[in-house]
Amino acid sequence: MKIETPFERPVGIVGAGLVGAGWAIVFARAGFAVRLFDDDRHVCESAIPWARKQLQALYERGLLKEPPDKIAGRLSLTSSLEEAVAGAAYVQESVFEKLEVKRRLMEALDAIADESVVIGSSSSGIPASDFALDLTISPRVLIAHPVNPPYLVPVVELVPSAQTSPDTVAFAEQLMTNIGQSVVRVKKEVDGFVLNRLQAALLREAWALHRDGIASCEDIDKTVRDGLGWRWSFMGPFETIDLNAAGGIADYAHRLGPLYYKIAQSRIDEGPWDVDLVAQVERDRRERLPASELAKRRDWRDARLMDFAAARFAADES
Amino acid sequence: MKIETPFERPVGIVGAGLVGAGWAIVFARAGFAVRLFDDDRHVCESAIPWARKQLQALYERGLLKEPPDKIAGRLSLTSSLEEAVAGAAYVQESVFEKLEVKRRLMEALDAIADESVVIGSSSSGIPASDFALDLTISPRVLIAHPVNPPYLVPVVELVPSAQTSPDTVAFAEQLMTNIGQSVVRVKKEVDGFVLNRLQAALLREAWALHRDGIASCEDIDKTVRDGLGWRWSFMGPFETIDLNAAGGIADYAHRLGPLYYKIAQSRIDEGPWDVDLVAQVERDRRERLPASELAKRRDWRDARLMDFAAARFAADES
Repeated sequence: MKIETPFERPVGIVGAGLVGAGWAIVFARAGFAVRLFDDDRHVCESAIPWARKQLQALYERGLLKEPPDKIAGRLSLTSSLEEAVAGAAYVQESVFEKLEVKRRLMEALDAIADESVVIGSSSSGIPASDFALDLTISPRVLIAHPVNPPYLVPVVELVPSAQTSPDTVAFAEQLMTNIGQSVVRVKKEVDGFVLNRLQAALLREAWALHRDGIASCEDIDKTVRDGLGWRWSFMGPFETIDLNAAGGIADYAHRLGPLYYKIAQSRIDEGPWDVDLVAQVERDRRERLPASELAKRRDWRDARLMDFAAARFAADES
Repeated sequence: MKIETPFERPVGIVGAGLVGAGWAIVFARAGFAVRLFDDDRHVCESAIPWARKQLQALYERGLLKEPPDKIAGRLSLTSSLEEAVAGAAYVQESVFEKLEVKRRLMEALDAIADESVVIGSSSSGIPASDFALDLTISPRVLIAHPVNPPYLVPVVELVPSAQTSPDTVAFAEQLMTNIGQSVVRVKKEVDGFVLNRLQAALLREAWALHRDGIASCEDIDKTVRDGLGWRWSFMGPFETIDLNAAGGIADYAHRLGPLYYKIAQSRIDEGPWDVDLVAQVERDRRERLPASELAKRRDWRDARLMDFAAARFAADES
């Protein structure tokens, strides 16, 4: 299998909602011709105008090396799955996160896909073993799970199933690296992969702290955004603690391990987030941000992510 | 009790190692005369030259409103505890994190401190109830736990004991806000307070993922620094998920709650970080960063934190 990024072949995007259209930007920005398809005609037709708007915003923040029109010119709509994947070196699927929907798509791809195509799934929780086994394409399917939006936040988790070939993983890793994503190699399938497992662990403690009256949602958010999140945003948790004890990480584990174990032990009898607790946190959030302002606040978030990306890339390069 | 920041009275810093000297910068930058004391003469004498160096770096990144010399001019060494706290409106103690050491200091302060002084402790894990009960000063003692270095990372956790007066909490909150820190009100004492509990939860999952062969330390770090950490660095975990489902946080809990509970259930039988695991993670980190380069990498971290602070403050103000 050819490992170099095959710019001469297009990329197929199947499922053109927020995630799929976000991926379209990533591939087009890297120089690929991108063919989008979505079962829902309306979703499909909204994708390119939306992508143009995002490209314009990226351009204004200095995050594009080419004019937005040139990049948008690489995007094209197709009216069938066949057309979207014909001749493609890589297909990124971002259809609805439901087992049957993903399985049906894999069967359809199995019937029509070129024998060299690699298929990445944006699945954030369902492993490829659940929907892509025992097909001709199975060795060429893996999870490529992004954070939304993928054209701003670079991480992508690559998770092979037991039937995914090593060549497929190597191809996907090379491709994702070449287009500027930050590849996390998840070696075995596990619920939530790495990213959502880490998020789940932190959220579980956050919900429990709120429930127990230790701190408000806003104060818990502050603890992360004005504290923990600073170092994590450029180092990650292991490097953070490695630098936080004179002798490095083993020294840190020796000093803090007992406290951290005590904290863990205090949470072993937790149940799921219960209905009353969810209602309470929902009220707390809605007091700070009425539901009618969620959309506006998402625009704010995306603008902040762009500023963060611009500052972060400048720092990484200096 | 007077709530306004009493700039006419000095601040006492007891314990002048990295944490204490870091606090000295925060108070001096805000306009306070700061009097430092440390039992260890060598530590005490190193504090001001070290603070001058940090102030110079802050100044070069546009993070100071006054020349560094002017701010450093507010710092003075004292040769006794009495001298450091005489007339002070507020004392920040950052002595060694050991119960007996903190208790002995509280008894000494009880004997000499002015009856209006408020005492904040930098304790990162020991609650004030363990070392500051049943003294005359007890109503005026609380935890004021910073992230290191406090002059860069703004969060401070305020944790009252059962004997801390509401006036003391209000005074500390006002003071910390006035000097530019971001106050997290921890309503009850709990092991690790909020910040280290959140960190503990995430680290626990990180160590387990590494142990189970799911991902390398570096890939786990990447997941946070190139993924989760981006949004957390300006929003925190609750606002992140509130914006991550069409209908807000209750909608998110409905969709993701079951997966997150399944993840939590998979970790209820965990023990402490064991010796072999610590050794394995230590080897992994040392391969990426030899022990001899830890100090240099800490300088890199502090420079990145300064860049982050400069970009973040600019974004917050725009």
